[in-house]
Amino acid sequence: MLSPLIQELVDALRTLPGVGPKSAQRMAFFVLTQAQEKGHYLGHILQKAIRQVKTCQRCRMLCETDVCSICKHVQRDKSIVCVVESPANVIAIENAGMYQGLYFVLSGHLSPIDGIGPEEIGIEQFIQRIEDEEVREVVLALSATVEGEATAYYLVELIKKRGLKATRIAHGIPLGGELEYVDEGTLAKALLDRTNI
Amino acid sequence: MLSPLIQELVDALRTLPGVGPKSAQRMAFFVLTQAQEKGHYLGHILQKAIRQVKTCQRCRMLCETDVCSICKHVQRDKSIVCVVESPANVIAIENAGMYQGLYFVLSGHLSPIDGIGPEEIGIEQFIQRIEDEEVREVVLALSATVEGEATAYYLVELIKKRGLKATRIAHGIPLGGELEYVDEGTLAKALLDRTNI
Repeated sequence: MLSPLIQELVDALRTLPGVGPKSAQRMAFFVLTQAQEKGHYLGHILQKAIRQVKTCQRCRMLCETDVCSICKHVQRDKSIVCVVESPANVIAIENAGMYQGLYFVLSGHLSPIDGIGPEEIGIEQFIQRIEDEEVREVVLALSATVEGEATAYYLVELIKKRGLKATRIAHGIPLGGELEYVDEGTLAKALLDRTNI
Repeated sequence: MLSPLIQELVDALRTLPGVGPKSAQRMAFFVLTQAQEKGHYLGHILQKAIRQVKTCQRCRMLCETDVCSICKHVQRDKSIVCVVESPANVIAIENAGMYQGLYFVLSGHLSPIDGIGPEEIGIEQFIQRIEDEEVREVVLALSATVEGEATAYYLVELIKKRGLKATRIAHGIPLGGELEYVDEGTLAKALLDRTNI
């Protein structure tokens, strides 16, 4: 029922994560009727960003320069590197505002069952980095999933072999979380990792 | 924390209805890391559609031709015109698969308080159409809101003055709707408009 071009637009909008057929149609009608100028600009910036954004040569964060602003920042502690699974995780940690070291962004986690080994997620470049630079500590901030854990164990081996300190972010009860709604696994881990007060 | 170009992309994605800061960031990272080609195509089709899509000269539905495929369809009943508030409503009625007449798409509804009068929503063109063409019946399929009702009353006057039949789609209990969850207004209307069986 939609004209061919509008149907193409709806289908293309469905590429975006979290966008189903109904929201794609709503978005299409919105840009076609109420936001032509902004929609046109979105189209332009999408193409420009995809053309110009690349990964930082040092930490693999997304940026449009050779080296990202975090790696270039003079006041950051270059002896600590935090390993994450995606650029979104860098933003999450930066927003928390507590971390002053640098990053290394893997492309997801190891998943031998899907044929995703160390080279596929960038571990070779990570080894190169900790060998070449004066890194003292590597903080692992990977997902608390089976694959995340497996990737963490694999990295710990590599880090310790080079005489560096390996740490991982704490797992436990989220701030503001009520005990009765926290799953048993998290609660068990929180008890095990209890700290002195 | 995001590089300037990525931030621009996130901001531009927030133009889309229903997209908040978190989903915009997720969309941006997705097209930049996993769907460059599809993202680039989306940018292209957005610009192309906004440039080429216009409104049908006859019914004001969105399409890329002068007259839309529904108006051009030889088997549709040209003596019935259904008035709706948006292109999305045409699609909804078409998907229901029961209506064989033509349409007229208003740009929303009357809203004197916001300075939106008959000319702003296309009522002049509607009058022209029912006067010029051999229309027998006008079906009003407007929102069941105060503004929708007001627009409907305004149109009924115009339609009856020209000796045409004016009807409106039925309001009542949605199919599959349980009585106890239907609001009182709808239930009252459903009782009032009860039909013989």
